[in-house]
This record gives sequence, structure tokens and C-alpha cells, in this order.
Amino acid sequence: MAIEFQVLGGAGEDNAAFVRVTTGQAIHRLLFDCGEGCPGAVPNAELLQLDHLCFSHFHMDHVAGFDSLFRRVYDRETKRNCVWGPPGTRAVLHHRLQGFLWNLVAGKHVPWFVHDIHPDGVQVERFELSEQFATAHPEAGQGRTSELLFSHPDYSLSAFTMNHGTPSMAYLVREVDRVNVNTDRMAARGWKPGPWLKRVRGTPAGPGEVVEVSGTAHSLAEVQAELLTLTSGDSLAYLTDFRMDGPAVDYLVERLRGVGTIICESQYRPADVDLAVANKHMVATEAATLAARCGARQLVLFHVSDRYPPHEWGDMLREAKAVFPRTEFPPHWGRF
Amino acid sequence: MAIEFQVLGGAGEDNAAFVRVTTGQAIHRLLFDCGEGCPGAVPNAELLQLDHLCFSHFHMDHVAGFDSLFRRVYDRETKRNCVWGPPGTRAVLHHRLQGFLWNLVAGKHVPWFVHDIHPDGVQVERFELSEQFATAHPEAGQGRTSELLFSHPDYSLSAFTMNHGTPSMAYLVREVDRVNVNTDRMAARGWKPGPWLKRVRGTPAGPGEVVEVSGTAHSLAEVQAELLTLTSGDSLAYLTDFRMDGPAVDYLVERLRGVGTIICESQYRPADVDLAVANKHMVATEAATLAARCGARQLVLFHVSDRYPPHEWGDMLREAKAVFPRTEFPPHWGRF
Repeated sequence: MAIEFQVLGGAGEDNAAFVRVTTGQAIHRLLFDCGEGCPGAVPNAELLQLDHLCFSHFHMDHVAGFDSLFRRVYDRETKRNCVWGPPGTRAVLHHRLQGFLWNLVAGKHVPWFVHDIHPDGVQVERFELSEQFATAHPEAGQGRTSELLFSHPDYSLSAFTMNHGTPSMAYLVREVDRVNVNTDRMAARGWKPGPWLKRVRGTPAGPGEVVEVSGTAHSLAEVQAELLTLTSGDSLAYLTDFRMDGPAVDYLVERLRGVGTIICESQYRPADVDLAVANKHMVATEAATLAARCGARQLVLFHVSDRYPPHEWGDMLREAKAVFPRTEFPPHWGRF
Repeated sequence: MAIEFQVLGGAGEDNAAFVRVTTGQAIHRLLFDCGEGCPGAVPNAELLQLDHLCFSHFHMDHVAGFDSLFRRVYDRETKRNCVWGPPGTRAVLHHRLQGFLWNLVAGKHVPWFVHDIHPDGVQVERFELSEQFATAHPEAGQGRTSELLFSHPDYSLSAFTMNHGTPSMAYLVREVDRVNVNTDRMAARGWKPGPWLKRVRGTPAGPGEVVEVSGTAHSLAEVQAELLTLTSGDSLAYLTDFRMDGPAVDYLVERLRGVGTIICESQYRPADVDLAVANKHMVATEAATLAARCGARQLVLFHVSDRYPPHEWGDMLREAKAVFPRTEFPPHWGRF
């Protein structure tokens, strides 16, 4: 069980994030944004297994690498092709899918499902390769009373609508919590594995419920308390291109408490907060403050402005570390 | 006066060609196709001065680099933004221009002119950045009785509709011929430069027309014959993604006789001509045969299939050289 991530693109360049949720039995792959040159940093075999492509929004630096990804997977039949993004995603993707000549695809039935995430629901359209993507087919959408987009047995994906002058989606990937049996304690009691374990791992004990272990009846509640340990799932938040003002921080702290990793933009240095306000971005210390208030395990800063020379990126990192020490740039950016 | 070119992209990768027509007074820049990674091989300052973007067609490997170019020039007001391509170009470009979020462009009046080249005319639509490119504005098109697209005082651009299963445009850039005065011969006669030279450089002499040089009347026809030399303009043809069958060769030889440079695809080796026929491409020796029959100065092969290992690209080149010795791959591909 782990959430692995790879920030794509260099400092001052377009960025994106490739995320893998691994369970031992399965690997789930998500790509957040698609800046120019970013898909090329992911091995082809990984891109071919992508489960979800999630856009924050459609400014050029977040979508200019789409063709590079799309040409690798456009006719993929092995997985459901899923795209998510803010309101308007269906329209932008519909245009993008039609930005090619499709005279050689007759008979290839490959659907693409594109989701507009609204605060109160998700609207979905299907586009078909065999139709040269000409027609938008409305699919059944879903209402939405929480930020949850979907819940898979292994993990869930949530989205938060932030303000970048335009809706910009922040995302949270959360592994499910796992219940494990402490085999050391089992051995210490001399209990052998058997069908009784299934009941112990199941729903919490009812009042007075007993379970028979090695021919002896025990209180199920006591056995569960003794043997079961809960392993919290890891989690990762992808936050970029929105104004991290007070209300935004409060809103996110509420939702990201105890989060494992925050990957967060860091466009500006604190001294340039006026630019961050004007352009609805953030400064490095705002990201660090959020991470500190959430009690995050680590903060990874990315999407830094190319207005700074490289040595100032180092200054920016130090400014953030002063607020939240467990802050780093992506490892492939080198040392600052 | 020269036509300079740079093939973009590596062997077995997406390719394109950047062409500069230089006159001493001006530089005209044309980009033929826009494969992934190709615009990035041209200095930004050159891309910002691009005069014409010319597509052969819109299969992925010819257009997947469009975003990379477009983000550099989308709001350019210093030059007319011109795109050319086969029928359907306006529709594809209209989609591509709408493949972004345009919430920050209010008041930026930047038109893009997109041209569909039909055999008998050119249809033009204008798209406006200030309108978020939403509306297609029909512009006055032009009839077409020859392959000529336009004639500039320095050069002309022609387009030929070829067959790739879909219309694929081949292009010819041709510098105008220049009339020069042979100053050595002028000096040998002891003639000093003066206003009389303007008449000599002008239209051909009428019957019996005279010109006064250093106080002496001369036959204008004789002076013109003695002093004027005609320098033929250079020319460059961009040929890719069509079936080079007999009729295609005959058609092109007619139009490319004496051409300077032919940049031509070379998807397959001669032994794989069946693939070339099936996929409406060509083999290296077909390109070489065309170059030989045209009497071209040089042939540059590009757009080779990645089905061959690199040593076979060398074999392919040798097969073409056997037909037309002045054949090379782009210099940055290295030695084969």
C-alpha cells in the first residue's frame, strides 16, 4: 500500500504530476494536468495504463502537452478513458479530440468519458473515436453532496473548486484504510489461523457476540480489540493555480487534515504577494502554512515562476522551509 | 538571396521543416508541418517572426506540436498570423484554437487567418483572440487557376494537392529571379554609374531604343545584353505523406523542373514498397527518382519510419543515393 508520485517538468517550466496508488494487487494511475513536455517524462507503458486524467483548468501551461499523451492512448481499448476537470472540460476536450484528421479509424470503437465537475454534481459526455469524436453523447451524471468524485475499493478521488479567476480544481487521492491482523499477538496466544479469522476481520462485534478460537469461545469484541490494527491509507493532494487566501486555507485545512503529501504550486516568493493576489496564485509561504496547519507529512513545491533566476528558487524554498520544514522541490530539480 | 532550411525532429520521430527566404533586406519565414517537439528546435525569436504555417495534412505526427508553437505566437500583433493546409484546415484549426481556456484575453485584438487550399480556389476564415476564437468569420477567398497561393516581391508559394488517402499538400517556395548589373563589364567599358543604369535595369529595350552613357548614345538592347545577368531564384519543395506513383511523379516533375532543394519523406525502404502503396507513402528510391527527373540540386530525405533500426536508415540512404547521388539526411541526424 503506497501512493507514489512523480512531479513532471523542470523548475520554471510546465509541470504536472503522475500519481500511482499501489496495493500489491493493483496499481491505479492518475495524471494531474498535462503541461508541455510532461507526458514524455512518464514511461510509455505507464501512460498506456492511465486510469484518470485530471485537469486543474485549461490555461496553456496545463494542457499544452495533451497531444503528446493523447496520441499514445487515443485508441486504447484496454481501460476506460476518463478525463476530469472544471466546468467547461467537456467543451475543451471535445475541441481537442477534433483537432486531428481521423480518416483511418473506421470500426475502432473507443469511447472517451469527459467529466465537468460542478460543486453540486458531475456532468459527463462520451465521445467516440469511431465517430471521429464529432458527437457529444450525454451520459448519466451524478449529484454531489460532498467533494467525493468516486470511491474505488482501493482509493477515492475528491475534487475541490478553487478560485483562479476561473474555477480551478484541486484534487485529493486517498487510499482506503486497511484492517490488518497482528499475527505476533495471535501466535503469542497460540491461536492458529482458521475460518474464525474471517469473522474477526469482518464487521465490529455485536453485543455479547462470541467467536470460537481453537475450541474455546471468546468475546468477539475482545478478540478484535486484541488482534486488529488499523492502517490508515496514505493520501496526496494536488493543489495548483488558485488564490490561497484565508478562506481557501480554512476550507482546505478542514479537508486535508493529516494528509500525507501535498504537491502545491509556488509561483511567487513572499515578497511578491501582490503578484500572487493579482494573478490569483500563491506564494511559497502560503503553501507552507497550509501544510503546517494540515499536519501534512510532506510538502512538495512545484510550478514556480520563471521570473526568478535559479538561485532565487533556492531562496523561495528556504522561505517555505522556515514555515514548514518538511518542504522540498521535486528531487529531479536538483539541489538549491 | 538564399533559401535556408532546417529539418526539425530526429530520424524515426516527428518531423517538420523551417524555411527562411533571405534577401539581404528581409527574411521570410515558413514552417511546414508541426510534429511533436519540432517547434522547440527553432529559436523562439525565429518562431515569433513566422510568416506562414503550412500543413500537409492533420495526422497526429504532423500537428501534435501545434500547441508548442501556438503558445508562443497566439497573441502576436506584429505580423499577420497565417495558416494554410488542405480542405478541412479551417475546421481543425478552429477546434485547436478553442482547445484552451481564454479568460484573460479581453481587449487583445489578434486575428488568425486560416486557409483551406482547394484545387480551384482558397477559402479563408478569420478567428479572433478577443472573441476567444469562438466565431469563424469568412474572409474573401481567391480563385485559383494555377497552383500559386501567393506572389510576394521576394518569393512565391505554391501548393499541390497530392493523394495520401486524404488530400495532402505539397509546397514549393520559389525566390523571384533577380536582374544584376555586371559591374566588371561596366568598368571595362569605362562607364560610370548614373541614372542611365535605372533604364538599363528596367524593362527590355523597345525596337531601336537608345540609352545615353557618358555622353554617348548606345543601343539599349546591346547595353542590356552586355551588362545584365539574370540570377535565377533558389527554390525548395516540401513533399511528404502521399503516394508517389507514376502520375504523381509526372505531375511533380512538370512543376519542379530545376528545383534547388527537395525535402521529401522517405517512409520505407524499396523492399517495402507494398507498405508504401498500402499506406499511401513512398519509398526512398521513389523520392530519388523524382529528384533525378527534376534535375534537383539536392534531395534531403526525412520522415523515415521507426520500423527500421538505425543501421537500416543508412541502407535506405544508400539505396536512394544509388538513384540520385546528391541525397542526404538532415545534417543533425548524424552519419549513417
